[in-house]
Amino acid sequence: MDYPNDQAPGAPVRSGIPEHGRIPKYYAVKAHIALLIEELGEGGLLPTERDLAEKYEVARETVRQALRELLLEGRLRRQGRGTVVAGPKLEQPLSLASYTEGVRRQGRTPGRTLISLDRFPCPEALAAEAGLTRGEPVWHMERVLLADDERVGLESTYVAVARVPGLDRDFDPDSSFYAYLHERLGIAFGDADERIETVLATPREALLIGTPPALPMLLIHRVSRDTEGQPLERVRTLYRGDRFSFTAHLGAHLGG
Amino acid sequence: MDYPNDQAPGAPVRSGIPEHGRIPKYYAVKAHIALLIEELGEGGLLPTERDLAEKYEVARETVRQALRELLLEGRLRRQGRGTVVAGPKLEQPLSLASYTEGVRRQGRTPGRTLISLDRFPCPEALAAEAGLTRGEPVWHMERVLLADDERVGLESTYVAVARVPGLDRDFDPDSSFYAYLHERLGIAFGDADERIETVLATPREALLIGTPPALPMLLIHRVSRDTEGQPLERVRTLYRGDRFSFTAHLGAHLGG
Repeated sequence: MDYPNDQAPGAPVRSGIPEHGRIPKYYAVKAHIALLIEELGEGGLLPTERDLAEKYEVARETVRQALRELLLEGRLRRQGRGTVVAGPKLEQPLSLASYTEGVRRQGRTPGRTLISLDRFPCPEALAAEAGLTRGEPVWHMERVLLADDERVGLESTYVAVARVPGLDRDFDPDSSFYAYLHERLGIAFGDADERIETVLATPREALLIGTPPALPMLLIHRVSRDTEGQPLERVRTLYRGDRFSFTAHLGAHLGG
Repeated sequence: MDYPNDQAPGAPVRSGIPEHGRIPKYYAVKAHIALLIEELGEGGLLPTERDLAEKYEVARETVRQALRELLLEGRLRRQGRGTVVAGPKLEQPLSLASYTEGVRRQGRTPGRTLISLDRFPCPEALAAEAGLTRGEPVWHMERVLLADDERVGLESTYVAVARVPGLDRDFDPDSSFYAYLHERLGIAFGDADERIETVLATPREALLIGTPPALPMLLIHRVSRDTEGQPLERVRTLYRGDRFSFTAHLGAHLGG
């Protein structure tokens, strides 16, 4: 047996160290800092780059590379001018439940900031994806997603104006769109197709969400229909990859 | 309306360009190369770094940064000493269906290479996660996942020896473990809990899968049970983030 017995099943095998044992220097430093992170616990303040470089007897650039990965992975986060140990990733269920419900379930307060709301004639690509008619008026609503006032994502919702004619007048953009649909308009979700991938944040997205540029993000595409099977919305939601994971319960009826 | 009408709903709004219009130079080059990628089509050969730097009148390092992102995102791939336009990401269903079925459904040939198979007493963390007994013998099987002979992922399967006592003798590691369980041992999957997140490949993982170091990966954790509700396996599968996306169909019964 060539790996430690206490290996957590969710962790990389052999702590990610190649069998040939030639460990990149930055990665050895990263492993040391990972231990330090466990000792410090959530919110604990990390020593400065300079102190870490002295402690491990490496160049500051080497420490910087290790910290960069730990920041991208969400194990550390910047706080003011310091670096502190981050909390665990939020676990959001992949379900028809809304962002609001998912975040509340974890004891966080969901919020949203409206970036833009405008209407335009449905372009070809959107019509094909969402089952709408080319040229019919559609809304595009773009909102930053918040959890406890922290910016964690960016969401674009495309929906036919015919479905929600008063969106610009009677919807509070800081509230749940799904609650609005259901409570105000009596529209309930029937089913949805989702696709999840990892992408890099664009400069605009990084600016709006306040992430470092090129942070890996989780991108979820959704096309949903109401209980009658009629097209409802096309959503593109970008979540900080360092702050979110997604869970699903799979039953035998989903197998193929 | 301040974005092009032909905006694809899956693409970043305003092509990812900030409203203030100050575009990082590398990102402007990236946008140009993205257009070139569309013109060239899958398999098309990209001009050299030097030629691109001359064409766009920027430093080679600027071109390199743009290419690095396009490679990480899976829109380009290295081929020999050149860089070619990559095909679309493989779409794998999030379902109880196996890797094998998912890849076959897309007309690719699935394969696996065994890295290691060993048995050891079940550690605490694994026992707690997978519903096993601490100290009972478990298998750990680690395999590289292939699609058309291309290395695309790395999978660790943990399963009790009591469930599959002959795993080291009568299982062909290049075949589907699920087919083996079902056809040979009459064990069928009942349900599973999955969690999906984005992580960076470790040096060992990058080496085994042959990816550039620190490529964003999709990591799927799975704990599954048989049709009697008995714990079956704990799996950790790492997929190349530039080659895979995952799809799910959500029904109203999954809402919460």
